Amino acid sequence: MALNKEKVRRKIIDTGHALIAQGGSEALQARIIAKQVGISVGSIYNLVGDIDALHRLINSELLDELGMVGSGTIEELDQNDVKDLRTRLLALAHAYFKFVEQHQNQWTALLAFNRNSTSAETPDWYMVRLEMLFDIISDNLKDTPLGDDPEKCKIAARALWSSVHGIVTNSFVGRDDAILKSSTLAQIDLLITVFVKGLHADQS
Amino acid sequence: MALNKEKVRRKIIDTGHALIAQGGSEALQARIIAKQVGISVGSIYNLVGDIDALHRLINSELLDELGMVGSGTIEELDQNDVKDLRTRLLALAHAYFKFVEQHQNQWTALLAFNRNSTSAETPDWYMVRLEMLFDIISDNLKDTPLGDDPEKCKIAARALWSSVHGIVTNSFVGRDDAILKSSTLAQIDLLITVFVKGLHADQS
Repeated sequence: MALNKEKVRRKIIDTGHALIAQGGSEALQARIIAKQVGISVGSIYNLVGDIDALHRLINSELLDELGMVGSGTIEELDQNDVKDLRTRLLALAHAYFKFVEQHQNQWTALLAFNRNSTSAETPDWYMVRLEMLFDIISDNLKDTPLGDDPEKCKIAARALWSSVHGIVTNSFVGRDDAILKSSTLAQIDLLITVFVKGLHADQS
Repeated sequence: MALNKEKVRRKIIDTGHALIAQGGSEALQARIIAKQVGISVGSIYNLVGDIDALHRLINSELLDELGMVGSGTIEELDQNDVKDLRTRLLALAHAYFKFVEQHQNQWTALLAFNRNSTSAETPDWYMVRLEMLFDIISDNLKDTPLGDDPEKCKIAARALWSSVHGIVTNSFVGRDDAILKSSTLAQIDLLITVFVKGLHADQS
């Protein structure tokens, strides 16, 4: 019985993922999910809560997926013994770009959802997931002159994250796909290259 | 007669600005504007076109306003004979932050509108306004090692724009206002400081 509930709950969440992927957050509707899963709207509320709660669940799974993409990238860099900071940060940025490309509707929906939520509505486990993403970046800054100052490392990690995020999301605006991609990669490359140079110039 | 039409047209646009400022893009509705201006819905369509056309008009005026904020900032820096690149870029970034703070709903609506538009729908005069904003930044990079390469200057200007944009917009997410502001300013400061150092390190 309990197993079955868990199965249905999983089905609801998976259907939600698919609906947002196809049509953005407006497509996430209890009525449609109920029909596709073959249950009543009431069952959705019982098993996952209201649509906002479901969207929050979907977003947290999306952040988990991004987290795994980040850890996977770091693992690969470590296995290949890549120590160069610029190369490491570029690999992370490209992984993020690819992730957003592959999850464009879901990511836009997550960002809009966050914009429309107040801090009181944002649960701690959600912020923890965000912090974990920042940690993936700040871990890489330990061997730079910023490394002695954990607070500055944190600020730098957030700044780099948001910068790459800004470049990537701005690029998905009214432009031809090929131009878009090369321009985005050029901007990411320039930003990270100059930033890493600046970090080491700090030492002198 | 023509003058009167222009007056009503202006009133429609101003009412649209106010509606978005109050309630975001969902609040931009022909029915409400017609009621507030005291005209028929048909008159709105005759004078400015459909809601998308009106929103595009509002957005272009918003970009004009941001452009004036940018030019004003540069003018002030020049009048005070501020030549230091870091100081100049920080002043532009802070001006952008303040602008977004003051126009939060309008800016969010503009970004969402752009995300939902295809390149075919984005008129040239709209892109020209964006280019002018990038030019304000790239003009400042002329005396750096990037200055010899106009293409790189352009990429750097876009990267800086998007980076500050990413930091500013990410900061408006689920957080206490005071922490938010100081964290955002710290990120902007660190990013620009390290970036400018990196630009000059390029020379060696």
